[in-house]
Amino acid sequence: MMLPTDPAENLATLIRCPSVTPAEGGALSALEAMLVPLGFAVERPTFSEDGTPSIENLYARRSGNGPHLMFAGHTDVVPVGDEAAWKHPPFSATVAHGEMYGRGAVDMKGGIACFVAAVARHIEKKGGPKGSISFLITGDEEGPAVNGTTKLLDWAAARGETWDAAIVGEPTNPDALGDMIKIGRRGSLSGIVTVNGRQGHAAYPHLADNPVRGLMALLDALLSPAFDKGTKDFQPTNLEVTSVDVGNPATNVIPARATASFNIRFNDSWSAETIQAEIHNRLDQGARRKKYRAGRKEAVDYELTWRERPSHVFLTRDDKLIRTLGGSVRAVVGKTPALSTSGGTSDARFIKDYCPVVEFGLVGKTMHMVDERVALADLEGLTQIYERFLDDWFGEA
Amino acid sequence: MMLPTDPAENLATLIRCPSVTPAEGGALSALEAMLVPLGFAVERPTFSEDGTPSIENLYARRSGNGPHLMFAGHTDVVPVGDEAAWKHPPFSATVAHGEMYGRGAVDMKGGIACFVAAVARHIEKKGGPKGSISFLITGDEEGPAVNGTTKLLDWAAARGETWDAAIVGEPTNPDALGDMIKIGRRGSLSGIVTVNGRQGHAAYPHLADNPVRGLMALLDALLSPAFDKGTKDFQPTNLEVTSVDVGNPATNVIPARATASFNIRFNDSWSAETIQAEIHNRLDQGARRKKYRAGRKEAVDYELTWRERPSHVFLTRDDKLIRTLGGSVRAVVGKTPALSTSGGTSDARFIKDYCPVVEFGLVGKTMHMVDERVALADLEGLTQIYERFLDDWFGEA
Repeated sequence: MMLPTDPAENLATLIRCPSVTPAEGGALSALEAMLVPLGFAVERPTFSEDGTPSIENLYARRSGNGPHLMFAGHTDVVPVGDEAAWKHPPFSATVAHGEMYGRGAVDMKGGIACFVAAVARHIEKKGGPKGSISFLITGDEEGPAVNGTTKLLDWAAARGETWDAAIVGEPTNPDALGDMIKIGRRGSLSGIVTVNGRQGHAAYPHLADNPVRGLMALLDALLSPAFDKGTKDFQPTNLEVTSVDVGNPATNVIPARATASFNIRFNDSWSAETIQAEIHNRLDQGARRKKYRAGRKEAVDYELTWRERPSHVFLTRDDKLIRTLGGSVRAVVGKTPALSTSGGTSDARFIKDYCPVVEFGLVGKTMHMVDERVALADLEGLTQIYERFLDDWFGEA
Repeated sequence: MMLPTDPAENLATLIRCPSVTPAEGGALSALEAMLVPLGFAVERPTFSEDGTPSIENLYARRSGNGPHLMFAGHTDVVPVGDEAAWKHPPFSATVAHGEMYGRGAVDMKGGIACFVAAVARHIEKKGGPKGSISFLITGDEEGPAVNGTTKLLDWAAARGETWDAAIVGEPTNPDALGDMIKIGRRGSLSGIVTVNGRQGHAAYPHLADNPVRGLMALLDALLSPAFDKGTKDFQPTNLEVTSVDVGNPATNVIPARATASFNIRFNDSWSAETIQAEIHNRLDQGARRKKYRAGRKEAVDYELTWRERPSHVFLTRDDKLIRTLGGSVRAVVGKTPALSTSGGTSDARFIKDYCPVVEFGLVGKTMHMVDERVALADLEGLTQIYERFLDDWFGEA
């Protein structure tokens, strides 16, 4: 029987499934068809929640005596955008000049295709790992992320599953394979500040209270000074004002209200709680500032609402996991990957509550873009890295 | 024949005409019926322009040998708002506790009613003025102001009309009759600033360029330092940011563009041209500031668009006009009115191009509000002030 040892073939099969979130598109079935011959027991739980689309997920385990490694990822992809702008149809998996084109090529059907190939090669070579391997795959990473990884972890844990380590196969390399392993992520918090002023005529500003002046004082306090200078493992904490909205069309009217939305990415100098307290503190300070509001005695009247739940900062400290994966990268591509905590959140933020987790996959340059594509050489390189990792991590156990 | 010497009766007649802009509502006809017995030749030109409602206007002249005085104003009124909230129906002219209720009571059917009564009394007493009196009345002051005073002035001037002085009967007194004569107005200019940034993910701010940061630097430069400290005749120049708009709903996305609208009221330290140059200069300075944009080498990429035409600053320097009106106020109410240039623009900004113009009318406290109303005592007082002015201004001529 032919095992799925060729990552390009695995990837072509997956790309041809149009699994734009929330559609399964045949992608999980295709993956199941690859895993069953490798000895995996496959389950396909569907999760639902009011107000969000129901999502099909996949959990597959090949059990053995020894530690348990999880490979996590998603088969859903973002929409294709302007399909006419693609050089090759986005679900065709066309190969041209050594690259395979298709939505999900690097984010992250490619990572799954490589890990499947690595497991197949490891089994061919060694007869199977000295332990257990699981695939924890969702169809809801690019969507609301409500009926995906977080529920799948709860579901598996409720059945008694435990893991010793996890690799998320997201595209972590900025430019070339082997650039970067992600060993943690900053936390993320979003909020909305609303300033209540008093409407009036622009010719009589003393009879009104322009909320834009108050909002500027608050945003000034949010944006400076810097929250910190970064830490050993993390970039500096950064806040971006993502929207400011007043919606007043009248040129001669001072509006009654102004709002701003912001997002803050915070490092391990902070917890979600301490950064929230700092934000409150800065807003209170800004509210008392006189700049922009000369002649006003009262503080700016503002409200702060937090959006969604915070995403907590985390840093993985599992030496064996990081050292083994770093060594595998070095062995295959001849360079030492950076250990980074940069970038946005990923499903690793959920997995970190169950076991040590790192992220390593393909090169992210074309992700979410028209003409998303992957070098065939990178597919082979990543497969070798994953295979080497399986050899060493289970070998060492 | 009964001449219209009673301002309360004149006002009741005008209030009962529901002349919400752009409706004539019978108000100009009612005024015509008062003026014809006083010897006025009345014309009712209608002006039109694409995209605006056609508006009926009134020009009435009583000719005599001597100087020519214009009384200017409008019979249109703003909408009644929540009609159920009025103590007395807004077009009923109900009198209660010495006050007459109705939309337009002070802004400014009341001013017209008083001037008509003053002219009637002056004619009864003296047989007519030693000169000419004109009423220049529009139905488009509270609306787009396109088919009103400005066209009516052009129309009359094209027929050879010239004037020596003008009084606009807007409600100029903040608290009590005789508080304030307006002898000029600040200029007004409105603009929109758009900052072009680069969209991106909130977790990778260095790959994006947040336009809110750039806009904050620009607004900071617009708002401080103060433009001036005011002049002998004018308040300090003041700028209000009337709207800021981004419209980005996504918490994790840095937007591509941000806009702000502003309105500036400028005094006689500036012309429309010099204040525009100052705004450009401040924006250019703000665009080069590093605050909020650390690490950026390029200046903020912004565009500035001026909205509408500027309203020019003006100050009336006609000693006879101001001195005579001030003396009339003193003679009737026993106090010296402030000579002010505060507040918003009015049709005086158009008239000032034809002759010296001042503004004096009723007490503005209830204008544009539910329960707009005028004290009957104020109607009699203003009539006496206008009558005294006619006596003295024509007497002095």
